[in-house]
Amino acid sequence: MLSNHLQNGIETAKLVWSRIPNSEDGEAVGLLSTSAGGSTVESLDYEVIENYAYREEQAQRGKLYVGYYVVVKWFFALLIGIGTGLAASFINISVENFAGWKFELTFSIIQKSYLAGFLVYLLINLALVFSSVYIITQFAPAAAGSGIPEIKGYLNGVDIHGILLFRTLIGKILGSIGSVGGGLALGKEGPLVHIGACIASLLGQGGSTKYHLSSRWLQVFKSDRDRRDLVTCGCAAGVSAAFRAPVGGVLFALEEVTSWWRSQLMWRVFFTSAIVAVVVRTSMGWCKSGKCGHFGSGGFIIWDISDGQEDYSFEELFPMAIIGVIGGLLGALFNQLTLYMTSWRRNYLHKKGARVKIIEACLISVITSVISFGLPLLRKCSPCPESDPDSGIECPRPPGMYGNYVNFYCSKDNEYNDLATIFFNTQDDAIRNLFSAKTIHEFSAQSLLTFLVMFYTLAVVTFGTAVPAGQFVPGIMIGSTYGRLVGMFVVKFYKKLNIEEGTYALLGAASFLGGSMRMTVTLCVIMVEISNNLKFLPLIMLVLLLSKAVGDAFNEGIYEEQARLKGIPLLESRPKYEMRKMTAKEACGTQKVVSLPRVVKVADVVSILRSSEHNGFPVIDHTRNGETLVIGLVLRSHLLVLLQSKVDFQHSPLPSDPITIGGSRSIGHNFSEFAKPVSSKGLSMDEIHLSSDDMEMYIDLAPFLNPSPYVVPEDMSLTKVYNLFRQLGLRHIFVVPRAARVIGLITRKDLLIEDAEDSNTVELQSTSVRGRQRDVRSFTRNTDAERPLLNGLLA
Amino acid sequence: MLSNHLQNGIETAKLVWSRIPNSEDGEAVGLLSTSAGGSTVESLDYEVIENYAYREEQAQRGKLYVGYYVVVKWFFALLIGIGTGLAASFINISVENFAGWKFELTFSIIQKSYLAGFLVYLLINLALVFSSVYIITQFAPAAAGSGIPEIKGYLNGVDIHGILLFRTLIGKILGSIGSVGGGLALGKEGPLVHIGACIASLLGQGGSTKYHLSSRWLQVFKSDRDRRDLVTCGCAAGVSAAFRAPVGGVLFALEEVTSWWRSQLMWRVFFTSAIVAVVVRTSMGWCKSGKCGHFGSGGFIIWDISDGQEDYSFEELFPMAIIGVIGGLLGALFNQLTLYMTSWRRNYLHKKGARVKIIEACLISVITSVISFGLPLLRKCSPCPESDPDSGIECPRPPGMYGNYVNFYCSKDNEYNDLATIFFNTQDDAIRNLFSAKTIHEFSAQSLLTFLVMFYTLAVVTFGTAVPAGQFVPGIMIGSTYGRLVGMFVVKFYKKLNIEEGTYALLGAASFLGGSMRMTVTLCVIMVEISNNLKFLPLIMLVLLLSKAVGDAFNEGIYEEQARLKGIPLLESRPKYEMRKMTAKEACGTQKVVSLPRVVKVADVVSILRSSEHNGFPVIDHTRNGETLVIGLVLRSHLLVLLQSKVDFQHSPLPSDPITIGGSRSIGHNFSEFAKPVSSKGLSMDEIHLSSDDMEMYIDLAPFLNPSPYVVPEDMSLTKVYNLFRQLGLRHIFVVPRAARVIGLITRKDLLIEDAEDSNTVELQSTSVRGRQRDVRSFTRNTDAERPLLNGLLA
Repeated sequence: MLSNHLQNGIETAKLVWSRIPNSEDGEAVGLLSTSAGGSTVESLDYEVIENYAYREEQAQRGKLYVGYYVVVKWFFALLIGIGTGLAASFINISVENFAGWKFELTFSIIQKSYLAGFLVYLLINLALVFSSVYIITQFAPAAAGSGIPEIKGYLNGVDIHGILLFRTLIGKILGSIGSVGGGLALGKEGPLVHIGACIASLLGQGGSTKYHLSSRWLQVFKSDRDRRDLVTCGCAAGVSAAFRAPVGGVLFALEEVTSWWRSQLMWRVFFTSAIVAVVVRTSMGWCKSGKCGHFGSGGFIIWDISDGQEDYSFEELFPMAIIGVIGGLLGALFNQLTLYMTSWRRNYLHKKGARVKIIEACLISVITSVISFGLPLLRKCSPCPESDPDSGIECPRPPGMYGNYVNFYCSKDNEYNDLATIFFNTQDDAIRNLFSAKTIHEFSAQSLLTFLVMFYTLAVVTFGTAVPAGQFVPGIMIGSTYGRLVGMFVVKFYKKLNIEEGTYALLGAASFLGGSMRMTVTLCVIMVEISNNLKFLPLIMLVLLLSKAVGDAFNEGIYEEQARLKGIPLLESRPKYEMRKMTAKEACGTQKVVSLPRVVKVADVVSILRSSEHNGFPVIDHTRNGETLVIGLVLRSHLLVLLQSKVDFQHSPLPSDPITIGGSRSIGHNFSEFAKPVSSKGLSMDEIHLSSDDMEMYIDLAPFLNPSPYVVPEDMSLTKVYNLFRQLGLRHIFVVPRAARVIGLITRKDLLIEDAEDSNTVELQSTSVRGRQRDVRSFTRNTDAERPLLNGLLA
Repeated sequence: MLSNHLQNGIETAKLVWSRIPNSEDGEAVGLLSTSAGGSTVESLDYEVIENYAYREEQAQRGKLYVGYYVVVKWFFALLIGIGTGLAASFINISVENFAGWKFELTFSIIQKSYLAGFLVYLLINLALVFSSVYIITQFAPAAAGSGIPEIKGYLNGVDIHGILLFRTLIGKILGSIGSVGGGLALGKEGPLVHIGACIASLLGQGGSTKYHLSSRWLQVFKSDRDRRDLVTCGCAAGVSAAFRAPVGGVLFALEEVTSWWRSQLMWRVFFTSAIVAVVVRTSMGWCKSGKCGHFGSGGFIIWDISDGQEDYSFEELFPMAIIGVIGGLLGALFNQLTLYMTSWRRNYLHKKGARVKIIEACLISVITSVISFGLPLLRKCSPCPESDPDSGIECPRPPGMYGNYVNFYCSKDNEYNDLATIFFNTQDDAIRNLFSAKTIHEFSAQSLLTFLVMFYTLAVVTFGTAVPAGQFVPGIMIGSTYGRLVGMFVVKFYKKLNIEEGTYALLGAASFLGGSMRMTVTLCVIMVEISNNLKFLPLIMLVLLLSKAVGDAFNEGIYEEQARLKGIPLLESRPKYEMRKMTAKEACGTQKVVSLPRVVKVADVVSILRSSEHNGFPVIDHTRNGETLVIGLVLRSHLLVLLQSKVDFQHSPLPSDPITIGGSRSIGHNFSEFAKPVSSKGLSMDEIHLSSDDMEMYIDLAPFLNPSPYVVPEDMSLTKVYNLFRQLGLRHIFVVPRAARVIGLITRKDLLIEDAEDSNTVELQSTSVRGRQRDVRSFTRNTDAERPLLNGLLA
């Protein structure tokens, strides 16, 4: 009787099977709940698996829908490009206007009184920084910092609550304007990456539901995988917009997304980057006509040194190598110091609430203002060098303009203050001055050293305050300072005509970024794109290789360090050495596996969900002769949806029969109900209220489970398991006993199936392997409806 | 009694287990034996698995050996860079000298007689092409063609016999010089990629054993995975050398190696590319002093257009889009025509032997000579434009020099022949002329059209002859011709001053390459690097996007088409749509699985190896209570080694006891005996001779098997299996029945194990997840020696 029922249920399942509405890649809910910094860390699921609901949707809507899906994907790439490009333009124009207005005002006031000028300068900075930190602490706490560690975590498979919300986007944009305009030792490039990712993610979920900006029409992307692809595009768009480096953007996205590299995605990322480049170029062209206020040569960081040094000789490789080593040392030190600072802030300072964060940021702003204004005052001015009319560089520069040779607190008119040229300036202009060619010995070694020490300290202290902050521009500042310093010695020592200090500044910048961020190809391409000079490519490569190698000897890259500190569990590309000696079973520890039967009592589900913190549960069924069989994995989040809706509750403890429910739809849900909105916590047990009658009912889990999660035998080495897990972007792997028999072996030739359509190519290649595959194909054609699992159950 | 023995054997195995000398990633032998084109296609194994022998080696030699291994890896990257750079320099200098001498001689003779000049020109070309085709057909047949499909196949996991041999390397270098110097419509860039890969592979196996050039000291890399990494470096080095495009080289290697992307590898590839750039630059600098004969501005293809068009307007986007579409159409047509040509050649022409191949190549050489000399004769000369002294372009160009405005068969001195400027020239110079700025209306539309049609035809016909042949330069020629044609109309139509025809030629070249090869980011970066102008990046991106999209509507990229035709079974990055509906079991087909018992009779092994063509066999053992258990996978190649050496034969049908054999080494082999030299066929059954006594003996397979190959349940979707297979670079997957129980679940947190060393970071992050992991770690420390499998066997 029971076995008869069971068999009925199995046939039921056979029919229902093809429209199971959930499977792992549709869903992701909190796995790791660390309370680090108050943020909830969740795990994402990027597994590329068969998705029954998706397949059914496609079958229903046909090829047209697939086409629509592809078009929408590309349309979204376009939108992300346009959105990020516009956001970047907006930020740059705003920052340039605030900063330009600030410096113009200050310069006009110091003609009369340096004290009044200083006070105005300090107050403007303070106001800008205060507005930034106020927005962040009160409105968008997730927008603090660069956001790159969080995005990196997201792309690695960890969802941190709040990082991709609409309020985070707005907070990041406004906060960046305030903090960068306010002259802090930080940049706007890191935040732009986060902004691109936010735009992408918001577009992907069809706008922000909270602010009634959503559109049903756009809600095409429901799986974590689609969202991840969009965020990857957004990342690339951010870098592309920040540095006007489209290729650098693509590489940045890919160097961070290494574990799920796909060439189709590369193609779309590439498109997004190109769009950003066009949008930014258009907006800059529009600004050239003077419609954007102070926005001129500054803003977008392109430090064109294409008119610099033409060539390099072999003797120069030695000082360049020294720059690489210095970059590695200073970069590693920077990472270590910021790590201590941030950890101290997290554990003591920032626990005292938002007010402390605001006071801290304001204090740092005041200190920065005092140093950047005060130090140049102490510096004696130098006489202008004999001007070369060809170079187009004036000394001192005309008032109110950007350029080298700033006259600041000088007694004579034809003098300039070299420290003010880099310190009392926007960072973009300072870098342009440091990179500038044909300005040999503009800066004294003393000024450069002073600046290096002070700015390095400021950058370390500023890092980790509650404002949006990028590390690219400060890194370039620091690097180009010591680079230029080395360059000065090279010019002095080698006494050659065609050595430019600006070239060494560029290499210094590359070396510090390499020593701190530990990126390779990406950084190289970005440096080439921002300096617009391909000739130094091998030199930049050399410097990066050295600085990364030196830095790696001490610690990890800054993003990895910060991610770890924030409790974002990144899976590195290389498994740990210890894993070689461990087996899969050992990794599971001593925890007991909680599994569910196929038809489960609601009360049991509730008690299991309450008592355990697992997010996935194996589902076990019994065959007719009493053997157990693992039939799949059900996710906590899906169970919660089932409990909340109550539609699929049944009175019988036997598998439900679809014929009694009738029609083609035997289950009460469609796929989208199981999809969790991005960056939300999803349902929790507390929100579900069940009556005692409900508790006595049953649920048949068969339609809701992922029927074939990846399995590994218990004694497989953990290294292998790790690679499987990371390469495929999994959330759960079942550890099972060693199999009793092998049903078949799959080799390369079994996976070479020809498209049915292109018969002409099949004909052409009668000599190739593929000819032998046709029988396999025809054999497998009629077996769609059959599910071997269920045959197994029947046996 | 038996069970006692069995238990003994099991305890034995427990001791032996940790030094099993083989596992999948150490080995690769013929899986697919297609006879397409006479080449044997084999399957490689890139699986990243625990390797007992490697582990033991490391344990024996300690950390020092690991350090040595890393140093050797980097040293090899350096050697590959230097080797490829030198090979590229040698080829370029040789080609430039042959071609330069040829044109100098011809130009000096045609001052007297055009007929004599033509004959000399024709004979020199014929001699060069003959030498090339003779070398290839007689000495190195695997060196024909570009080699990129083969290398692509190798990196995808398919080993084609002969492509990475020393003779292939030599044949490729000499053949390239002959075929390119002989003026055929092909390039030397594709072959350089193959050359780089050959150099890398030969270095990796410590030189060529056949030619006594090997060194034991260098034989560090024994696994397919190490070799693949080296070949990847070699590929990048080839592209870097061919185009002097180091970043393009890195991207090329990565866009082709998508399925096994690893960031550590990227780093090494990057280094190799940088080295190549430095070597090439050095050799070019050395040549500047005139030591290399005719080697001047030509040779290395850098078509510097940095002094070209400064800006572009929006109206220009439309003609540029048209270029993209044309590129897609012509590129797809090119792929289709070459596919038909090659298939016809394979099936009819080249079956007739080497003599036909030689005659064919010589015939094509004669035709090429006639067309390239004859057609310009028919063309009327044009008067020189008014010369602009600033541009530095003379008309007609001085005799014996490179440049625009060639005076060829002109009646007056101040005339030039526009067709001869591109046709009667080396291809590098022709491209330079087509790209050249400030030469508006140098070419007539009629000449460009004539050239386009003739050269397109020549390129199609030449493709597939038995000489080393690249498609980059012909593609750039074709593309820049119609690009310049469109540019002429744009100049005429828009009547703006700053539009350069050369810019359109560049875009045309990008579009044709995109339409034919379907690469994206790589091509974009290469085009930017060879044109040395970053400003056109968004335009190149746009053109590439369009041409690839248009081309994809018709057929696959040229390398994929050619690979298919050659019977190289590439696994594409996206699984076929049909796979969604298939299960793992269906993919295995109806073939019976041949499995071996743990202790197997030699006679049985021989009969199984003779009767089946499988390359991997599951090994099944029995537990004490009679249940079967899959204990691992043994490879055909390893069985053959065991049969040949006979060291491990035993009389007893019970598991061998290591105590009787004694000492720490219980098996008669070390790891290196199982390693197969690259690109060789390995052992075959025919080479093994066994006496009838041998046949009655037994082998205990336990020490020789891979104890945990990846398994999938029988009803897993084939899409999932495909991703698993491709992402991890597997050769075999076991299809097993669904498990009866789940021992454990592995989630992200189980894989986050801290290094024991950096205790300070662990302290720092008391708030993070990692704190919770420490107990797991300490729990797993003492379990190294235990193998759960064996516990299972004992149970």
